[in-house]
Amino acid sequence: MGMWDNELTRLLNIEYPIIQAPMAGGVTSPDLIAAVSNSGGLGMMGAGYMAPGQIREQIRQIRQLTDKPFGINLFVPTNYTIDREKINLVKHSMKHIMEKLKYQSEDIEIPSFEENIDNFKEQINIIIDEKVPICTFTFGIPSADVINQLKNHSIIVIGTATTVEEAILNEKAEMDAVVLQGSEAGGHRGTFKKSIQESLIGLISLIPQASDHVHIPLIAAGGIMDGRGVMAAKCLGAKGFQFGTAFLTCVESGANQVYKDAILHSTEDQTVLTTAFSGKIARGIKNTFITEMEKVKEDIPVYPIQNELTKGIRKAAGTLKNQEYMSLWSGQSPRLAKSSTAKELIEQIISETEKISSSYSN
Amino acid sequence: MGMWDNELTRLLNIEYPIIQAPMAGGVTSPDLIAAVSNSGGLGMMGAGYMAPGQIREQIRQIRQLTDKPFGINLFVPTNYTIDREKINLVKHSMKHIMEKLKYQSEDIEIPSFEENIDNFKEQINIIIDEKVPICTFTFGIPSADVINQLKNHSIIVIGTATTVEEAILNEKAEMDAVVLQGSEAGGHRGTFKKSIQESLIGLISLIPQASDHVHIPLIAAGGIMDGRGVMAAKCLGAKGFQFGTAFLTCVESGANQVYKDAILHSTEDQTVLTTAFSGKIARGIKNTFITEMEKVKEDIPVYPIQNELTKGIRKAAGTLKNQEYMSLWSGQSPRLAKSSTAKELIEQIISETEKISSSYSN
Repeated sequence: MGMWDNELTRLLNIEYPIIQAPMAGGVTSPDLIAAVSNSGGLGMMGAGYMAPGQIREQIRQIRQLTDKPFGINLFVPTNYTIDREKINLVKHSMKHIMEKLKYQSEDIEIPSFEENIDNFKEQINIIIDEKVPICTFTFGIPSADVINQLKNHSIIVIGTATTVEEAILNEKAEMDAVVLQGSEAGGHRGTFKKSIQESLIGLISLIPQASDHVHIPLIAAGGIMDGRGVMAAKCLGAKGFQFGTAFLTCVESGANQVYKDAILHSTEDQTVLTTAFSGKIARGIKNTFITEMEKVKEDIPVYPIQNELTKGIRKAAGTLKNQEYMSLWSGQSPRLAKSSTAKELIEQIISETEKISSSYSN
Repeated sequence: MGMWDNELTRLLNIEYPIIQAPMAGGVTSPDLIAAVSNSGGLGMMGAGYMAPGQIREQIRQIRQLTDKPFGINLFVPTNYTIDREKINLVKHSMKHIMEKLKYQSEDIEIPSFEENIDNFKEQINIIIDEKVPICTFTFGIPSADVINQLKNHSIIVIGTATTVEEAILNEKAEMDAVVLQGSEAGGHRGTFKKSIQESLIGLISLIPQASDHVHIPLIAAGGIMDGRGVMAAKCLGAKGFQFGTAFLTCVESGANQVYKDAILHSTEDQTVLTTAFSGKIARGIKNTFITEMEKVKEDIPVYPIQNELTKGIRKAAGTLKNQEYMSLWSGQSPRLAKSSTAKELIEQIISETEKISSSYSN
């Protein structure tokens, strides 16, 4: 298809510039990743939280299912110190929730920043060792050493930006492309240079302004669910289109059915920004946990501490199918979510985009 | 032009579905309104704050400059009670600012809600009396009586929505079209049914979801500054394109030059949402006044009380050309602002849109 061939599809060696967002927490199952890549898009593993061994295992599972390119997303470690007092405060605030979910709090071991860095290095080593073709980053730009190491092994590197300045920094760091995360996007904000207030930019503003200042291919992320969103982002200057929520509700996604159903029954006005689950701000469907933690929001420790502290609660809630205490990350377009296969979704996106495009050729 | 002819241009009897946003506070001068309408778009008077006599005078000035259609925007009165204690608190907090600006606080008379309603009725009467072809509303939906009264005089009525539900309510109230105000938009949020947190929806999410549920023509507003934004909004399902910030920096706009320059030198990450100036949440470029009022934000009275209380400060700051204490409303795309004439801007938007559109006809 002539309309799909561009610098990004050539860079990534894929047929369509449709990228499945690297959602962490088990959503991006090998089945989902392979289905997306087999359908001409790019499947992505959300490996931010994953142990190096687990990443290697999943890479091998994906390779059983597809010989097409796929990518892996990692979280760039951000500095933090462990404040025991704050941890005890927030643990105390969450006690009644644990009791409600009949979850016995074990002793939670919180990794130090140094352990986090070691883990990140091991993750990078596995990506190189397994010759994964594409590696993307959230929460910052890794060191020039890491970028060079990957590039020396012919691995394509892609960063994430939420402002024009962050996009420029990614280009300066020699990223091959950059994901522009609009304020519409579900899940964690990738912001690393600016405050949250400064970096909630809608895609209709963010793409053209970034496009005027950045020369590497731009991948639009946030609120895009169908051919209308693809054509809009394309007109604004994007070369690639990242879909998170749209793939999350697909049959192959590893998300809990309760979570999928929550999205399928939500409206655009039901998502909020919260630090309740992880300590880092993220967009998800409002529920009881978010509302309750809002009252003690000053006590919530930073990422990844709060993430470790709520792990048991989220897991217990998932087992009990209680959506009120699960993290229900979603972008601002849940009304457009469907429960189809990834292949059907991609085919539909492609045909709708081509239909809109050809409506301009009269 | 075939690509511009649609139900909205036919409804409004205009050549291009390019609408100049009704910015209040003197921005939408008769010169600007007439220049937009004379160039094939729709000029709009931001009359929310204007006294009925002033509206009549401006209508007559506009008619001296153009015989094309133009519109007037009014604020639907929202209930409030005057809390003297709160007023004294916030006045005290602003005292040092008044001193800094050498502004002597007069006795400020705050109109009652009942007076506000009477003023609104008079505004409506003048619109009918002067046979203004189009009347649009912000901050809510007027009573069925008001809508019928206007419709009986063949005046086209258009509402404002920030969520799908608000768009549906506008359609149910028999509005002829509805403006979808995305989270990117500068100035006051038109939200009337939902909380602010629920209603900051990016246009790339808001337009297609509204388009699936509403049948009256949708006018996209927020962050649109050029042909890229028009084509994007068009692909998403909008029939009209409202430009605020883009017209604000035009030669004919009545905005203070300091204000225009502030926008022309800003970036997308410099606008914030604040209630500091009027008591109602609005997007503008962050400055000292916003930062200082943030400390006492719990004390800020609701609209229109705070608006009356800060009037003198804003006026004094404008006279002193001190942008730190003026309301610098701006959408999220200030990098795309230019200082051209309204005619040049419209011609540029039209030719860029047609160029993008025709790039799909190969």
